[in-house]
Amino acid sequence: MSLDNLARSAYSEDHEAFRQTVRRFMQEEIAPNAAKWQEDGIVPKSIWPKAGELGLLCPTVPEEYGGLGLDFGYNAIVDEEGSYYGGAATGFSLHSDIVVNYIISYGSEEQKREWLPKMVAGEVITAIAMTEPGTGSDLQGIRTTAKKDGNHYVINGSKTYITNGQNADLVLVCVKTDTEVQPAYKGVSIVLVEADREGFKRGRKLDKIGMDEADTSELFFEDVRVPITNCLGEEGKGFIYLMSELPQERLSIAVSAQTSAQKAYDMTVEFCRDRKAFGKPVIDFQNTRFTLADLKSKLQVGWAHLDWALTRLLAKQLTPEEGAAAKLWHTELQWETVDKCLQLHGGAGYMNEYPIARMWRAARVTRIFGGTNEIMKELIGRKL
Amino acid sequence: MSLDNLARSAYSEDHEAFRQTVRRFMQEEIAPNAAKWQEDGIVPKSIWPKAGELGLLCPTVPEEYGGLGLDFGYNAIVDEEGSYYGGAATGFSLHSDIVVNYIISYGSEEQKREWLPKMVAGEVITAIAMTEPGTGSDLQGIRTTAKKDGNHYVINGSKTYITNGQNADLVLVCVKTDTEVQPAYKGVSIVLVEADREGFKRGRKLDKIGMDEADTSELFFEDVRVPITNCLGEEGKGFIYLMSELPQERLSIAVSAQTSAQKAYDMTVEFCRDRKAFGKPVIDFQNTRFTLADLKSKLQVGWAHLDWALTRLLAKQLTPEEGAAAKLWHTELQWETVDKCLQLHGGAGYMNEYPIARMWRAARVTRIFGGTNEIMKELIGRKL
Amino acid sequence: MSLDNLARSAYSEDHEAFRQTVRRFMQEEIAPNAAKWQEDGIVPKSIWPKAGELGLLCPTVPEEYGGLGLDFGYNAIVDEEGSYYGGAATGFSLHSDIVVNYIISYGSEEQKREWLPKMVAGEVITAIAMTEPGTGSDLQGIRTTAKKDGNHYVINGSKTYITNGQNADLVLVCVKTDTEVQPAYKGVSIVLVEADREGFKRGRKLDKIGMDEADTSELFFEDVRVPITNCLGEEGKGFIYLMSELPQERLSIAVSAQTSAQKAYDMTVEFCRDRKAFGKPVIDFQNTRFTLADLKSKLQVGWAHLDWALTRLLAKQLTPEEGAAAKLWHTELQWETVDKCLQLHGGAGYMNEYPIARMWRAARVTRIFGGTNEIMKELIGRKL
Amino acid sequence: MSLDNLARSAYSEDHEAFRQTVRRFMQEEIAPNAAKWQEDGIVPKSIWPKAGELGLLCPTVPEEYGGLGLDFGYNAIVDEEGSYYGGAATGFSLHSDIVVNYIISYGSEEQKREWLPKMVAGEVITAIAMTEPGTGSDLQGIRTTAKKDGNHYVINGSKTYITNGQNADLVLVCVKTDTEVQPAYKGVSIVLVEADREGFKRGRKLDKIGMDEADTSELFFEDVRVPITNCLGEEGKGFIYLMSELPQERLSIAVSAQTSAQKAYDMTVEFCRDRKAFGKPVIDFQNTRFTLADLKSKLQVGWAHLDWALTRLLAKQLTPEEGAAAKLWHTELQWETVDKCLQLHGGAGYMNEYPIARMWRAARVTRIFGGTNEIMKELIGRKL
Repeated sequence: MSLDNLARSAYSEDHEAFRQTVRRFMQEEIAPNAAKWQEDGIVPKSIWPKAGELGLLCPTVPEEYGGLGLDFGYNAIVDEEGSYYGGAATGFSLHSDIVVNYIISYGSEEQKREWLPKMVAGEVITAIAMTEPGTGSDLQGIRTTAKKDGNHYVINGSKTYITNGQNADLVLVCVKTDTEVQPAYKGVSIVLVEADREGFKRGRKLDKIGMDEADTSELFFEDVRVPITNCLGEEGKGFIYLMSELPQERLSIAVSAQTSAQKAYDMTVEFCRDRKAFGKPVIDFQNTRFTLADLKSKLQVGWAHLDWALTRLLAKQLTPEEGAAAKLWHTELQWETVDKCLQLHGGAGYMNEYPIARMWRAARVTRIFGGTNEIMKELIGRKL
Repeated sequence: MSLDNLARSAYSEDHEAFRQTVRRFMQEEIAPNAAKWQEDGIVPKSIWPKAGELGLLCPTVPEEYGGLGLDFGYNAIVDEEGSYYGGAATGFSLHSDIVVNYIISYGSEEQKREWLPKMVAGEVITAIAMTEPGTGSDLQGIRTTAKKDGNHYVINGSKTYITNGQNADLVLVCVKTDTEVQPAYKGVSIVLVEADREGFKRGRKLDKIGMDEADTSELFFEDVRVPITNCLGEEGKGFIYLMSELPQERLSIAVSAQTSAQKAYDMTVEFCRDRKAFGKPVIDFQNTRFTLADLKSKLQVGWAHLDWALTRLLAKQLTPEEGAAAKLWHTELQWETVDKCLQLHGGAGYMNEYPIARMWRAARVTRIFGGTNEIMKELIGRKL
Repeated sequence: MSLDNLARSAYSEDHEAFRQTVRRFMQEEIAPNAAKWQEDGIVPKSIWPKAGELGLLCPTVPEEYGGLGLDFGYNAIVDEEGSYYGGAATGFSLHSDIVVNYIISYGSEEQKREWLPKMVAGEVITAIAMTEPGTGSDLQGIRTTAKKDGNHYVINGSKTYITNGQNADLVLVCVKTDTEVQPAYKGVSIVLVEADREGFKRGRKLDKIGMDEADTSELFFEDVRVPITNCLGEEGKGFIYLMSELPQERLSIAVSAQTSAQKAYDMTVEFCRDRKAFGKPVIDFQNTRFTLADLKSKLQVGWAHLDWALTRLLAKQLTPEEGAAAKLWHTELQWETVDKCLQLHGGAGYMNEYPIARMWRAARVTRIFGGTNEIMKELIGRKL
Repeated sequence: MSLDNLARSAYSEDHEAFRQTVRRFMQEEIAPNAAKWQEDGIVPKSIWPKAGELGLLCPTVPEEYGGLGLDFGYNAIVDEEGSYYGGAATGFSLHSDIVVNYIISYGSEEQKREWLPKMVAGEVITAIAMTEPGTGSDLQGIRTTAKKDGNHYVINGSKTYITNGQNADLVLVCVKTDTEVQPAYKGVSIVLVEADREGFKRGRKLDKIGMDEADTSELFFEDVRVPITNCLGEEGKGFIYLMSELPQERLSIAVSAQTSAQKAYDMTVEFCRDRKAFGKPVIDFQNTRFTLADLKSKLQVGWAHLDWALTRLLAKQLTPEEGAAAKLWHTELQWETVDKCLQLHGGAGYMNEYPIARMWRAARVTRIFGGTNEIMKELIGRKL
């Protein structure tokens, strides 16, 4: 039971060496605390600098900004090891796989110098605020506004489902800088809002089906003033920026989904070997074997695809539709796997003390977040 | 949105009149408290006498024992209204649909006189203790023993996943009165254990994926002495008794599963009418309509089947295989429905503040309890 | 293995008595010839008067027009026995369950007197021509026209997928009597076209995946002149007439689908009992038992629903949406059943000499004809 | 619509150059004749030498035996191009991907010299006879015997479902050379039987659901005498030999399954763009787009996995379980794809004149042959 005996093709020896560091961190710093954090409902900020020290945060940041200048494969390894050995939603992935790219790709020199080193070090935790109450995945329909007042924006509105909402020191906020322009997407901009700005308020941490430790919150903006220089890249290009980073964002979800599915499967094989029913191990029933064999086949297929997609991403060849397909397929696999694995646990599966219960509750969100799987089909379907 | 505009066939006018009483109780006494009880993790005992007063508990108990002498259709109506309007797992169903039948069918005159009136009144809450840690659905493999010592049994062992475990005043405990006899099922007996017996201990209330308010516990028996007259019916016939009550027990699960599915569907139609995405109501997307139309068809089929099965049960024609098929089919329908309905809620579906989240978490157990759906297939398959 | 040991609720003793007559006919006149007719690619017209003599055709025709004046339950019994014991697509269902109703409901007194007695007797075989090349289920988009010329219509156009196309003596043709009117459905009329009219041509019998014996054809109309009195009911009301008969039409498909599924299941249970693999009967493998148990449960549910729907139809309560749901659900069940049953046959299942292969090929069309199952979802979904 | 715009990783430039030769052959020699051969029910032997001349047959045969000494990637390309552009089941795959390996791996020098050059040239067509009436996938249970009589075997028995049964010049026959030995598999041997041996009879060509042109037959052996030197490899090792070649055999099925699925998808996208319903192209309905988007995602995943598996096979790393998983997964994908694609064709899909109908009928066998998918699960499950 480990990630090591899979026949992978996406990673180099350097990647695999890095994996050992990451695994140790997950086993020593995350896994032992996961249960407590789940009860607390949050992961403490203190874990971030430890991760930063080991190079786990934002590995793709160029060396000139304090980073390691590595490729996204290193991110993927952090995601894999976190899903498999960590067992807690740390919020690293949002920070390292998603937010940081916006700053690397579109940030001004000042923004890079100010934020990237701290993000790498885990001194600054970031979030990105897209969704609003009632808007779902429809970014063109957002109603949070940033109105110019001299050389400042004045931001008003509210956001929800924001990962790292409680812990975040810096939030990339999607706003409308122009509410009149047609087509509407040209009015969307991204503005950096520091958490200590006046008028910025964190709402309640949301009570979710699972991922109890994950910090998912509402955020409120009441006349928050930020300098115009806090705009990321060009005004009115926010929508285009968001679209450009999606393949990587979605692949990041796929990586965790595939790994979580493998973890659930591995745990369940062990459970079915140990647990007896009607006088024999549960694994000796044909139904159990067939269910597990079918899942094993799908996991094999999944790893092959994941490595293909990672290789494409590293070569800058992964298209938005391919990324959407990966998010769709791997999260559906994750769901099928954890649900069947829970069922093989019988009554135990319904008890939160069994890890499968926690994994199952956590898994339900992946078909929804990062764009629902229906949105993925819409995106792929539009291009036919 | 109600249970009233369905084309039902199982119920008489008397049943439907009773339904109005039940509904009012669920709307006034249960629904307003459900959220609090879910937070508390238990339903207070004080609700039981109120339900008893209105005739909601054990309606099939003969009039001579303080009951109303009605048919199981009245039980089904309590289950339906509870699932649709109550929104909390009260434990009534276990008490009224399952436990009481053992006493009615196999109890001694003394046992009936002592317990039935109090059960009807809600003065005594009951439980039945079958499953043990590690045994699952394999009743012949239980290890809790009742050894004779003079005119007493001395009971030792432990049980788990016991509904009403914290609240129960009386527990029907499945024990081995003979650990040697072959075939093993002939060693199984059912013994009534009052909760104030020395050596009887309630373990922790179990932390479950859902049904937070449901009182599901471990129970421990350490040299618990009960008089031999506490044996239900004949010694060594416990297994046969348990088998005899299964069709009704399973149909009871099917009733709640079907009703919960209808509730989730009704709520989701309303949600999709209200919620907008990309500028139009979510229900105006073909995918939404197709998903809901498909579910609506299945619900229509389900109600027809449920009424057929209820009619068969009332006519004492429902076979064990038919009951197993009902449990299997309706709980699978429930699951498919709540999961698709949650998905149609998007991000909101993952938030516990939305009822669909709670219903979804609650629904996961029905494919497992009352015999897993795999056991249902085994039972049906054996008869082919 | 028979239809007799199912717990049905829709039929009276009179229905069941009629069933025996029908069954004998199917066993003696249809089943022995099915293989030959499948090879011939057509059912001979000579079988129709035999069926008529026994009262199998159009049982709902009032006595004053030579019929038996019975209810649709008698039609359903012919459908069931034909599907279970006949094993050949005779075309009776289209004639008795669908076409005749248009004449009964909307025909002029002259039309009734002329056609109904002959339809009952099997002297006249009927068809209804709706679909056109390229139009699918979109009846408002048809392009066959009937232009008035004095007291005649002149019909031009072509139709396809017409059941009984080769054998039909009388065809109810859906035409546009007005190509300009808005909304377009008000231009649709139904005109009776006798097969001996000049300009009426039968195209090729279509080569289909299955139902080889079913007579499904193209029809061509080249300046076909028919008297205006051949219009069914009022001009411009054809679309409304078609909609009005749909619940019964769709339930008729559901009846055959459910019965075919039962037949496939019964045959497969027997096959799995007889066939050995790895030294034991195939039915002794848990996967086989689970698959069959699951199908058996669904068939139980299906029969209950079918009887509910038949009872509703007989009471004139079945809504168009309920009829659509029945068509959708039962044809999906049929497909799942025959496909899983074929798989349990292993290599034999792929051989046309095994009945399951023929049933499987035949079954593929039921998700498509009578309105595709997507159209069913659209119809149900529109009403949400 | 072609295989060229997929992001493949398994093939070299040399492979892709070879692909062009193969494609031309499939487009010019196979595709134009497919319809005729399907009607004839057989592919003429005359096509084989043409394929041989171009190097399409048995590309892995070493140069010293008249072959090209290439790797299995070349076989896979023939399979892909045949499935995509050929559209007829030629029987090449059995000959080149499966039979020839037995002779290469286990044949005596004499056998190699005699048969390999002719197999490469298409002068000799081969078959392998495993399955017997009633045995299915249970090779240890075969009842065809080869009894020694001096330096000859005398073979008696019958075989069924034999691909290339009518055309074969040489048949590798699985026989029992020892019916007593335990475990039974040690009694299995493979014997080469030339088709002109006395007592060898070809039975009827089997009438199948699809692949009408595929030559699938029964074979009979009545006192067929062959020299002992016709035994392949060692006596009693037949079962082990058969097991050793399975990963490649199963991957070969997976290659064709994946390619057929892609073909069905490509055809259906085009169909849905062209076909109109209710006044707009079918592809403009959300249900159509979602269905196709979901299939496109799965096809993407499938190609990635196929290339992974091919790469593993070429590196001699593909395990039997991985090969079984590939056969299982890709044939299930093929089925899901062709069935959904047929449905999107509406009524046209049921007509044999549309290619989707033929592909659909052909596809049904792949979940059965080469070991049913249940056997695949059994094989994978045993290793858990």
